[in-house]
Amino acid sequence: MTKRPLILITNDDGINAPGIRTLIDIMNTIGDVVVVAPDSPQSGMGHAITLDSTLYVQQVKLGNDSQPEYSCSGTPADCVKLAIREILDRKPDLCVSGINHGSNSSINVIYSGTMSAAIEAGIEGIPAIGFSLLDYKWHANFEATKPYVKKITEQVLEHGLPDGVILNVNIPNIPSKDIKGIKVCRQAKANWVEEFDKRKNPQGKDYYWLTGKFVNLDHGEDTDEWALENGYVSVVPTQFDLTAHDYIQNLNNWNLNA
Amino acid sequence: MTKRPLILITNDDGINAPGIRTLIDIMNTIGDVVVVAPDSPQSGMGHAITLDSTLYVQQVKLGNDSQPEYSCSGTPADCVKLAIREILDRKPDLCVSGINHGSNSSINVIYSGTMSAAIEAGIEGIPAIGFSLLDYKWHANFEATKPYVKKITEQVLEHGLPDGVILNVNIPNIPSKDIKGIKVCRQAKANWVEEFDKRKNPQGKDYYWLTGKFVNLDHGEDTDEWALENGYVSVVPTQFDLTAHDYIQNLNNWNLNA
Repeated sequence: MTKRPLILITNDDGINAPGIRTLIDIMNTIGDVVVVAPDSPQSGMGHAITLDSTLYVQQVKLGNDSQPEYSCSGTPADCVKLAIREILDRKPDLCVSGINHGSNSSINVIYSGTMSAAIEAGIEGIPAIGFSLLDYKWHANFEATKPYVKKITEQVLEHGLPDGVILNVNIPNIPSKDIKGIKVCRQAKANWVEEFDKRKNPQGKDYYWLTGKFVNLDHGEDTDEWALENGYVSVVPTQFDLTAHDYIQNLNNWNLNA
Repeated sequence: MTKRPLILITNDDGINAPGIRTLIDIMNTIGDVVVVAPDSPQSGMGHAITLDSTLYVQQVKLGNDSQPEYSCSGTPADCVKLAIREILDRKPDLCVSGINHGSNSSINVIYSGTMSAAIEAGIEGIPAIGFSLLDYKWHANFEATKPYVKKITEQVLEHGLPDGVILNVNIPNIPSKDIKGIKVCRQAKANWVEEFDKRKNPQGKDYYWLTGKFVNLDHGEDTDEWALENGYVSVVPTQFDLTAHDYIQNLNNWNLNA
């Protein structure tokens, strides 16, 4: 690429989050950056889009960098749609989402607003990467993520990504010197076992908080969970064709049209 | 199965929607039904879950049937989690979601609360089906869907579904006599081209409505879009392992660890 690439940046923790501020710093060393991100946290929004209410977008100035930034009232997927159709003059060369405060490995990809934003860009034919650090804290230390985020981004710009493939990158929360490298993985078969915390409100009515325990029963050494537990940055190629192609033939043997 | 199966019913249009009332009628002819569904419409919620606010659940009585019904303040995925952990005495034998008012074919599966509820059940190891009728109207006529919903449900109860596979069923909005049968398909590669409707609020501030045009560039005759356009009920086996397995080897050839 002879000229600087145009990079769209978004996230799900909100435009003020330290994770996206780190991502902006890194991307400013690579290309021309435009930020379109939610005005408030949107974790767990999955691939929600705003159908029944209105969307507001406002240009904002945060920090000292010169990139244009827009704060949006919608979900992460809305941000990407608005950026492409209403804000950017041309299709971006890349969309990066994050750096998420907390893991989006294994089944978390399904619930993740960060990854849904990247997937939305992928649907639009834009190479896209979601980045996450395994630390939920607002003041997480993103320093160790920088060389890995930069390396993976440069490799995507060099190689491109095929239509329909997005990268899901997770970075372990360990000191820089202990990170062993980058490992290409599959999504582990793990899930959350919910434990609802049932309480009574001041009026005596029952309500619940969703909590849960993460359970990984997948012992494969080719999974993202294995990589992260063993000190690697995990990279999972992720797709939005949800068809279980291998099962089509089985279904054709059912008695569906008798 | 010698005793009647326990069937969990949910949707994303809300517990009052005609589509779920039809689904309840059909499932009452097959098994013992429990309904746990959102108290208000949740279309386009994707796989959102409620992390930052509380959840309320209330037992309700709608219509004359005797099944227990619970109305929930959360998303479709929340409803399934709450049903399994807090409401049902045992794991259901089946979860059905819908009948959605409007299509969940091709890329719509990603945005669909109806399908996310079914996928959530699938993550929990429960055989699950999402049903949708290609008619967005509240007073859509669900009569023609009945024999197909019943047939597919009975086939799932007879054959089971492998771990990680959920069925996405869409039914064309045509008279019963014109439906040609059931076709097993893959998800078409189609997407929405958004056209934001930009307006000014009474205070003069710009806002947007998300609208769009559905574009199908996939001319395969093995897709759900082809089946629906040609008068078939489409059945797509759907998975929540989003790994693009075919692309792992390519990524391993990148220069990620230099």
